[in-house]
Amino acid sequence: MKAEIICVGTELLLGNIVNTNAAWLAERLAGLGVSCFYQTVVGDNRERLLETLGIAAKRSEIILLSGGLGPTQDDMTKETVAEFCKKKLVMDDKSRAHIEEYFAARGMKPSENNWKQAMVPEGCRVLDNHNGTAPGMVVESAKGRFILLPGPPEELHLMFEESVAPYLKALSPNVILSQTVKTCGLSESAVEEQIRDLIDKQSNPTIATYAKTGEVHIRVTAGGETAKEAGKLIKPLVKELKNRFGNDIYTTEDEVTLEKALADLLTSAELTISCAESCTGGLVSATLINVPGISELYKAGFVTYSNKAKRRLLGVKKGTLQKYGAVSSQTAEEMVKGLLAETKTDVGIAVTGIAGPDGGTKEKPVGLVYISCNVKGKITVKECHFKGDREKVRRSSVTAALMLARSCVLEYLSKVTFGK
Amino acid sequence: MKAEIICVGTELLLGNIVNTNAAWLAERLAGLGVSCFYQTVVGDNRERLLETLGIAAKRSEIILLSGGLGPTQDDMTKETVAEFCKKKLVMDDKSRAHIEEYFAARGMKPSENNWKQAMVPEGCRVLDNHNGTAPGMVVESAKGRFILLPGPPEELHLMFEESVAPYLKALSPNVILSQTVKTCGLSESAVEEQIRDLIDKQSNPTIATYAKTGEVHIRVTAGGETAKEAGKLIKPLVKELKNRFGNDIYTTEDEVTLEKALADLLTSAELTISCAESCTGGLVSATLINVPGISELYKAGFVTYSNKAKRRLLGVKKGTLQKYGAVSSQTAEEMVKGLLAETKTDVGIAVTGIAGPDGGTKEKPVGLVYISCNVKGKITVKECHFKGDREKVRRSSVTAALMLARSCVLEYLSKVTFGK
Repeated sequence: MKAEIICVGTELLLGNIVNTNAAWLAERLAGLGVSCFYQTVVGDNRERLLETLGIAAKRSEIILLSGGLGPTQDDMTKETVAEFCKKKLVMDDKSRAHIEEYFAARGMKPSENNWKQAMVPEGCRVLDNHNGTAPGMVVESAKGRFILLPGPPEELHLMFEESVAPYLKALSPNVILSQTVKTCGLSESAVEEQIRDLIDKQSNPTIATYAKTGEVHIRVTAGGETAKEAGKLIKPLVKELKNRFGNDIYTTEDEVTLEKALADLLTSAELTISCAESCTGGLVSATLINVPGISELYKAGFVTYSNKAKRRLLGVKKGTLQKYGAVSSQTAEEMVKGLLAETKTDVGIAVTGIAGPDGGTKEKPVGLVYISCNVKGKITVKECHFKGDREKVRRSSVTAALMLARSCVLEYLSKVTFGK
Repeated sequence: MKAEIICVGTELLLGNIVNTNAAWLAERLAGLGVSCFYQTVVGDNRERLLETLGIAAKRSEIILLSGGLGPTQDDMTKETVAEFCKKKLVMDDKSRAHIEEYFAARGMKPSENNWKQAMVPEGCRVLDNHNGTAPGMVVESAKGRFILLPGPPEELHLMFEESVAPYLKALSPNVILSQTVKTCGLSESAVEEQIRDLIDKQSNPTIATYAKTGEVHIRVTAGGETAKEAGKLIKPLVKELKNRFGNDIYTTEDEVTLEKALADLLTSAELTISCAESCTGGLVSATLINVPGISELYKAGFVTYSNKAKRRLLGVKKGTLQKYGAVSSQTAEEMVKGLLAETKTDVGIAVTGIAGPDGGTKEKPVGLVYISCNVKGKITVKECHFKGDREKVRRSSVTAALMLARSCVLEYLSKVTFGK
């Protein structure tokens, strides 16, 4: 089954935004076993979109489009696909009701433009948008299958998972299954070297690595006539990966993030947690609170950006700040010590560092971050040197903080178990 | 002058990496006044690249390619472009010497593969690569102008600035300038309705709207023989937009975000700020701390996810939590009151709500969020109803919190000024 991706939007053509939708869709298609040989970006322009549709329809069976479903005159993806497939646009009552509801919930009235979003090509399959007002569509015609998705990533992701993935799975005679083995704390080349032999002899299942911030995911994909058959092929390879990487693997489930893995570990060990952050500014807490139901174990967080806040809220000593500075192993240690004293939780994480672009010196350059973890009084401090801009340093710090907490809790548990 | 961008690489097609090169090139081309109507991604595959070149050469005068210039067998961009243009590959002595030097400087010997990088289509213009070994090329032929650039962004950026921008400038007589007017608190369709007359009569400058979470950006773009001439065309339109949208515009500068605008407003008014967050879990603080240099005015943040933390850290009354619940206007008010008492800052923001997926009831559904702002004792509480998943509700809450803080501070300042 051959697919291609067309992203519609003048803001993409002008380079105002980076095309993350294409990468996201491509990765999901690959995961579903759908081959994708082309990605095209075209502006909100009828003639050029028609031309692009013509080229795509000749060489691919499934064409995924993102963007251009908004309420404005600019947005013309749906109208142009309908024209290309020779379909009329008709009002979809369910979409109309959804738009009405959406605006009512915000105490606003839809404008005339908004009703345009409820118009769909006749006979299409309408895909609900639970993160916005523009419905998605699957248009099946003599020209091919066109899947229209909204441009905003959070709308596109949810709609793809809820509606498009099941649709594509149903089209393919073969079942493609994949499982992701997620590691943290290793570089991509280190991971690749450890599985070079498995990569070299791959056929079915295939095996591939993907680098994320601080993490490397190994995706194992197998095809078979049934899910059971494909699953049987995957199982021994995942087992082998578990043998090779041990505790560096934090999950073998696609939907489990690092923060979710940490939360699960804390829940099973009945440990509560709190955070104190300087340069990450609340991002470690915000990431942990990504996990639904975290309120059972996450108790409180402090953003102690100023020295005064570090002293007042966490009891960091004035002398420590003066002698070693706010970005130091000593301050990180006192932060996490004070944190547990204040919150009475079992585990604490603290972060202090220089995210840049200013504030770096020769001794303490931008990217220097100290992360500390306190598990019931046992404190571990890690010095990290991250590369990249402010955003990248902060993201790297969050991942490193979650990883440190995970390894400290694992160590604590191994001793508790051993002691029993 | 019409150009298009072709990015070559299987890692792009599989979604392993995001295509930042296309966005970067597109933005630079727009800045140089070169129209770019298409971007295509194709894998390292001779047939499909030939097909893509054929399509591009028919509709564009300049074709920029990135990627596929590496030393391995996979890399075939140069070979395929040469084939397409019917040019032989010949050894470029300067490139050969550069490769020799590059490896010598690192104490390494080039492998046989590396010499492949010094082969170029006969008669082309070779572009030096000061960040790597693969030279770039400009191939001018009866089929069109092809500009070949390396895939690694730091090599591509430098080569573009050093060699490609001057080459394109020499080809084109025009300059394109654009400016972005950013509004918050209005829907995209509401913005469009207010500027329908301007959109309808647009030619040079052009005007277009882009929706972001809680924000709508209006981009004004003009072309002229000089930057001064283009600037003169933009200025009156931006002034007109300022008249129409007033305080709903938070900036007219491309690089200023909502958090930066709030930070600038606070700085100019010499006001300090702090945050107390429940459902956003630190994301308001983290967003504010995106702004470099924020430490002057951002003092501290609390993530009071549990009721206990709300009581202990912010002094929310037990009775209030019992009678009205943690997600209530009353709790939001007490949070932000306690926040200022604790931090002694001038401005405080507090957020409490139900991000979901669990925790919603009929009376208090998922998406119900109370946001409060305290400016020197004057408290404003806003009730919001957001749709979407946990992530979307939290993102919407952050934007709404920044907007509320901005409008409360503006109101405070208008009274202070008025009172003087």
